[in-house]
Amino acid sequence: MREVFVAGIGMTPFGRFPDTTIEALGRQAILAALEDAGIGQNDVEVAYAGHARTGRLHKRENGVGQLCCWSAGIREIPIAGVGNFCASGSTALRETWMAVGSGLYDVGLAIGVEQLSKRPEGGQPLTSDGMELEGELGFTPPAFFALAARRYMHTTGVDPAVLAQVAVKNRRHASLNPYAQYRSPITLGEVLGSPMVADPLTRLSCCPTSDGAAAAILVSREAAERLELDRLVRVLSSSLASGGYRGDDIAHLDLDHRAALAAYEMADVGPEDVDVAEVHDAFTICEIIHYEDLGFCPMWEGAAMVQSGDSSLGGRLPVSTSGGLLSRGHPLGATGIAQAHEVVTQLRGEAGERQVEGARIGLTHCVGGFVTSDAAASAVHILAAA
Amino acid sequence: MREVFVAGIGMTPFGRFPDTTIEALGRQAILAALEDAGIGQNDVEVAYAGHARTGRLHKRENGVGQLCCWSAGIREIPIAGVGNFCASGSTALRETWMAVGSGLYDVGLAIGVEQLSKRPEGGQPLTSDGMELEGELGFTPPAFFALAARRYMHTTGVDPAVLAQVAVKNRRHASLNPYAQYRSPITLGEVLGSPMVADPLTRLSCCPTSDGAAAAILVSREAAERLELDRLVRVLSSSLASGGYRGDDIAHLDLDHRAALAAYEMADVGPEDVDVAEVHDAFTICEIIHYEDLGFCPMWEGAAMVQSGDSSLGGRLPVSTSGGLLSRGHPLGATGIAQAHEVVTQLRGEAGERQVEGARIGLTHCVGGFVTSDAAASAVHILAAA
Repeated sequence: MREVFVAGIGMTPFGRFPDTTIEALGRQAILAALEDAGIGQNDVEVAYAGHARTGRLHKRENGVGQLCCWSAGIREIPIAGVGNFCASGSTALRETWMAVGSGLYDVGLAIGVEQLSKRPEGGQPLTSDGMELEGELGFTPPAFFALAARRYMHTTGVDPAVLAQVAVKNRRHASLNPYAQYRSPITLGEVLGSPMVADPLTRLSCCPTSDGAAAAILVSREAAERLELDRLVRVLSSSLASGGYRGDDIAHLDLDHRAALAAYEMADVGPEDVDVAEVHDAFTICEIIHYEDLGFCPMWEGAAMVQSGDSSLGGRLPVSTSGGLLSRGHPLGATGIAQAHEVVTQLRGEAGERQVEGARIGLTHCVGGFVTSDAAASAVHILAAA
Repeated sequence: MREVFVAGIGMTPFGRFPDTTIEALGRQAILAALEDAGIGQNDVEVAYAGHARTGRLHKRENGVGQLCCWSAGIREIPIAGVGNFCASGSTALRETWMAVGSGLYDVGLAIGVEQLSKRPEGGQPLTSDGMELEGELGFTPPAFFALAARRYMHTTGVDPAVLAQVAVKNRRHASLNPYAQYRSPITLGEVLGSPMVADPLTRLSCCPTSDGAAAAILVSREAAERLELDRLVRVLSSSLASGGYRGDDIAHLDLDHRAALAAYEMADVGPEDVDVAEVHDAFTICEIIHYEDLGFCPMWEGAAMVQSGDSSLGGRLPVSTSGGLLSRGHPLGATGIAQAHEVVTQLRGEAGERQVEGARIGLTHCVGGFVTSDAAASAVHILAAA
């Protein structure tokens, strides 16, 4: 594998856009990424599209990448759709990285897109793939992570107000991000007082339903030189793992831990080197346990990172500077690439009011699927200012 | 990209198995491929799963690869789902090839699976993704290829009996393949006399609805030596293209032509070097136009290849020795890997009564999506006896 760089990023604002189409969202993100990179449609040699619910919601289980590319004026190139639950976008990024890193292609496009607010198939809530029975019995993702939260609180003694601080922090970050779905700051009381979804997780402790798209242009060094691209960010590593939670500890995800170890090893850096990170904060508790599984702090000390402000903007390791899934939004297949969008923005020093000063190394982490089965996927990418 | 070899293949018989599950089909193919390669579950380092309809039919748009791998005893490794219409299996094979060829992994698993006969979502016919309106108006794939057939007949003067010879030939081949869905030989009169689907395509001119799975183990040379693997088949090239048909000629598929040219160039061979091929004979006319788009004969001379016996077992270039989609069956996501299964079997000299004597170079070709839009994909792989 040769070196691979992110040369361009683009995304739509995240939100609820039931009156648009998947192709229109995809086109907007792709055109923004091309413009950001300063390249044209004909420069793109290969594309991967991440999407997780376009089949069940929109009868588009295949060809989403083709439709988005065609819509953006990119034709004839190899295009593949990739699905990996909430990590679909990260997986598309990873496949693009591999396609360029392998030497087969010099310029690749990763696109992630989802439109969850428009449900032509009907209004039934969607359960996780393969978990229909559990879903009908109420054992949905919020229920699972409520159990994880209870286990966490039982072991550490932290109370729900500590978990809620994650939502407050990430909304504060989102207030500085023009792409975020929710930008109005919220208080601890509002998070704790919002309707209960699965005790102790209230509505504001859960990520919203979102639509949106994000795209990234990945290039080889040769292409960067030939096309005279600058503002490059290097992909130090990309890892993907499957599996579930850790043995008898429902509060920690073994697959995340393994994905992180693999990413650190490939990048030849440690968690102490990470300056900024986007993690999969689908629920408040998730961000805390991800700190631990990613090695940002010792086991059972994640809550302290929130309490101390370590993971806030201005802290030791700002996490979810975009606002995270909780406030930037979570259009499944787009999320992993939106995370890269944020980290690249930070590593370029272009994050404006939410800039992490001197950020040199950034990490993204996405996990999807139902971790009570082994049908889950975790992806970690480590990026560095070039 | 370094050299990549197919070290093991496995598949289920194709047929209609509504009482089994996707995981059970996948497990059977994976275990067969592991046994064929002579390796264990723990040797597999990465996996890609191709499936095109598991989301819309089975509410499993994601995680099919994880479920199949878990079911076969393969855990924790990176697994991604890939979708590309009928070329989903070929795309999974291609991604596995890239993962091993890149140097990231030494042993990869490609799995393709589909179960079309079981429709928990209801009995509605499935239209191609993104072609709902056309489908409701009757412009389904058989209707499109009926138009292609009419254009072909108009230009060349061949009559429907020539097209029907493809079905007779492929059924004769299938009669020698224990994995084929339909093995009883059929006559020209039976093909022409079966119920009309879209004139001139009768039911026996169309591929059936199928269930099944196929798997392949791909390895680096280093892994082959370390694990003492033999009966290797080398992957000379893998190409993927998107697009539609050729300008004003509905009978030819530009994306197939481009995919073929790319595959020949990468493999450094020409169509004249191909000894055996599996092509995407979803309808009788398809096989004929694929001969031409793949360069097996000049434009508009494909029908003559059938009439002369050139593409029959014993002929100059036997095509669809497995029975093809028409008779071996077409469980969408499994098809591309089943094609590789047949070609590998031939190149190893293990095809028994349907062996192509002295076969050294084989080609597989899958095309999917609705070619009237650009939302289509064509994949070509060229393999060689090692």
